[in-house]
Amino acid sequence: MVTGLRRERCVACERGAPTLTAEELADLRPQIPDWQVVEVDGVPRLTRTYTVRNFAEALALTNRIGELAEAEGHHPSILTEWGRVTVSWWTHKIRGLHRNDVVMAAKTDAVAESGH
Amino acid sequence: MVTGLRRERCVACERGAPTLTAEELADLRPQIPDWQVVEVDGVPRLTRTYTVRNFAEALALTNRIGELAEAEGHHPSILTEWGRVTVSWWTHKIRGLHRNDVVMAAKTDAVAESGH
Repeated sequence: MVTGLRRERCVACERGAPTLTAEELADLRPQIPDWQVVEVDGVPRLTRTYTVRNFAEALALTNRIGELAEAEGHHPSILTEWGRVTVSWWTHKIRGLHRNDVVMAAKTDAVAESGH
Repeated sequence: MVTGLRRERCVACERGAPTLTAEELADLRPQIPDWQVVEVDGVPRLTRTYTVRNFAEALALTNRIGELAEAEGHHPSILTEWGRVTVSWWTHKIRGLHRNDVVMAAKTDAVAESGH
């Protein structure tokens, strides 16, 4: 399923840009149904864990997500472990979630699907 | 500085193998002075954060550590972020620290140094 978000690009995000409102986030989440909102140090992040077969596959997925991040100029944290990869997106500059983060979550799903 | 631990190889580790005693760990830690022992879900891990210049360097270091892990058949968790990489070693099978983990921490330091 190709969703609209996956086709968007990250926009430049300045300090002071507005975080997503609860309503905006609620509208977008059906497009990224497998992502959770987790708060770390008071900052919400979008987080998803992908299950893979071993460590080599986890590292390969980490690299594909890393390439995506470099291409878009927006960077997640990626936890690589044997058999799984956990990705978290948030916007450091605004200490919260920007539309970019939802776009990147959708694009991450596309990247993860393309590897299978 | 090349330390003795860096020259060791991981040994096969079976369920039921002994965890390091506090004394054994204390004897080895001077060889990995920058590693902390952090407990997660009741299981101690050896953890260190390496600072690098950007996301691309973090991903490159993650890959070098991943190659080391595959070569030794022992796998850490690696958190890749913009400008830093956090590595954690522990032995899942024994829910604790094995000498292998200290060996791998020392080897990780060697890998990280070789990239600069």
